[in-house]
Amino acid sequence: MTDVNRVWRLRKRPTGMIDNDTLSFDREAVPQPGEGQFLVRVNYLSLDPTNRVWMSDMEQYMPPVALGDAMRGVVCGTVLESRSPAVAAGEIVSGLGVWADYQLGSPATFHKLASPQGVSTAEAFGLFTGAGPTAYFGLLDVGKPRAGETVVVSAAAGAVGSIVGQIARIKECRVVGLAGSDKKCRWLVEELGFDAAIDHKRPDLPLALHRACPDGVDVYFDNVGGEVLDACLQQMNLNGRIPTCGLISQYNATAAVPGPKNYASILVKRLTVQGFIVLDYVPRYPEAIGALSDWMRQGKLKFRVDLREGLENAVSALRMLFTGENTGKLMIHVR
Amino acid sequence: MTDVNRVWRLRKRPTGMIDNDTLSFDREAVPQPGEGQFLVRVNYLSLDPTNRVWMSDMEQYMPPVALGDAMRGVVCGTVLESRSPAVAAGEIVSGLGVWADYQLGSPATFHKLASPQGVSTAEAFGLFTGAGPTAYFGLLDVGKPRAGETVVVSAAAGAVGSIVGQIARIKECRVVGLAGSDKKCRWLVEELGFDAAIDHKRPDLPLALHRACPDGVDVYFDNVGGEVLDACLQQMNLNGRIPTCGLISQYNATAAVPGPKNYASILVKRLTVQGFIVLDYVPRYPEAIGALSDWMRQGKLKFRVDLREGLENAVSALRMLFTGENTGKLMIHVR
Repeated sequence: MTDVNRVWRLRKRPTGMIDNDTLSFDREAVPQPGEGQFLVRVNYLSLDPTNRVWMSDMEQYMPPVALGDAMRGVVCGTVLESRSPAVAAGEIVSGLGVWADYQLGSPATFHKLASPQGVSTAEAFGLFTGAGPTAYFGLLDVGKPRAGETVVVSAAAGAVGSIVGQIARIKECRVVGLAGSDKKCRWLVEELGFDAAIDHKRPDLPLALHRACPDGVDVYFDNVGGEVLDACLQQMNLNGRIPTCGLISQYNATAAVPGPKNYASILVKRLTVQGFIVLDYVPRYPEAIGALSDWMRQGKLKFRVDLREGLENAVSALRMLFTGENTGKLMIHVR
Repeated sequence: MTDVNRVWRLRKRPTGMIDNDTLSFDREAVPQPGEGQFLVRVNYLSLDPTNRVWMSDMEQYMPPVALGDAMRGVVCGTVLESRSPAVAAGEIVSGLGVWADYQLGSPATFHKLASPQGVSTAEAFGLFTGAGPTAYFGLLDVGKPRAGETVVVSAAAGAVGSIVGQIARIKECRVVGLAGSDKKCRWLVEELGFDAAIDHKRPDLPLALHRACPDGVDVYFDNVGGEVLDACLQQMNLNGRIPTCGLISQYNATAAVPGPKNYASILVKRLTVQGFIVLDYVPRYPEAIGALSDWMRQGKLKFRVDLREGLENAVSALRMLFTGENTGKLMIHVR
């Protein structure tokens, strides 16, 4: 290999929004696979709210990225050279890697990515690697919606939220999405079949939510925390469930974040609030991928990839998750 | 009946701590039972944190007491006259009644109270009517402790907390109690067999908790909320459980109460926070009462009744729950 490997490295812990000094974009040599490893040329880099968490030293579910290390990310690529019996050159793999053109993989962190008929590699990568199983297990295993119940999901126009809402519709629930613009709300209702969608920036959010959920809320799938969580706590029904998938509203916080002021609703309404991480469900991924593939094939599930060009744009693209500029699964087309 | 009935009536919604104008102590006629009713002469009045909630118009799990109405409370008494086939004169009953010497009961709200051998009426009333089943179902059904795990309980010297800790010991857990004085802490360790107890007023509570729970906390049985909850959230283990039984730290609040600032731990550690109300478990009371009776008989469970004399002292006694002056199950000996 004579090519250059471009690598994003973490240079400092960000305060608030990621700025241009948070990471450096370095030119390095392409690594050589050792015994049991393989070399991956990255095609797609997934951008996720958790990337921001990994950059920080806030309490988190795996060690933060060390200063100076290549930035951690979920990637999809082509195996160029393999010294592992698990994969062969030319195969498409995805896994937990780094923000770089090339990287070494091993069977511990990468696995083959299969694309069912009619599903592109980018779609299969975005849907099956993270967002799909997150939505599937978080909604069905943690949220346990029953037909006829009302499900509310925040960040509904995002990768996970858009799938959560559609699965809830498939399960015959009333589905209300919370998203950050009228355009996104229209997309949720007109394209994805949500029963209603509300701009979460409305100052009268609790009232709007109350009107959109005349029978109250049985499941609130929380991707954001903060004021949206407080508004939902007000509308929860007795024995409601709140799968807690993300708290994106506070990932850029520069000071201690206040907890939900309606916390007492958990007691009064006998709610169950349960945090989950999709990594705990890896052994059951085939179940989720099977169901998601079936729904895609039957036309019941739409998945939108929001593809941005160029590894050099990874940082500016990641910021979009926090400003709400993306719709659907945000990823970088690397090559 | 020529006797006078003394009745506590709610006169205004309290702000902060209950004061002497919150209720009036009136002298009224003894009521006459109608068809299907019976007349109860009260022996014991249970004082519970939820009494304070019922006086307020904060969001709660049943309607608040209306202004002018007799104050709602759990009572135990003797049937003086019955026009119901369900009970006979002379029988001991307990149920959801009012703060008064005499009151009318019906099978919908009162049931017979049985005292197993060696258990006094006051003990049976305090243990079987509320505190015992609350501790039993909250810990075992909601908290799901496994042998060898660490269980922390707040308000540990209170009626529910003291039973929670002892049941957790019976289930072979390490048990750490949080209570409001050194004297209470000594009682928990020396008399009830807790592994450790900590004064929750210590300024270094998180550190003290960390030291008392070297393997982290698997179950935090929350009776109080507030800063104690935040300290526990810091020490929780992955997949920990937080049965939420009460939030006494905020019942006297005069302004909006901030939520737990460590709320994000729910996500990061995949915690389950679940509110519950013992009333949801009424059909399963016999199971709890059977187990609690057995443990009492075997000497594995101690139950302390903190009995105060005189219905006229109900308000001043109730305040003790909030100042931490009681130890064990607080109740009024009415007659």
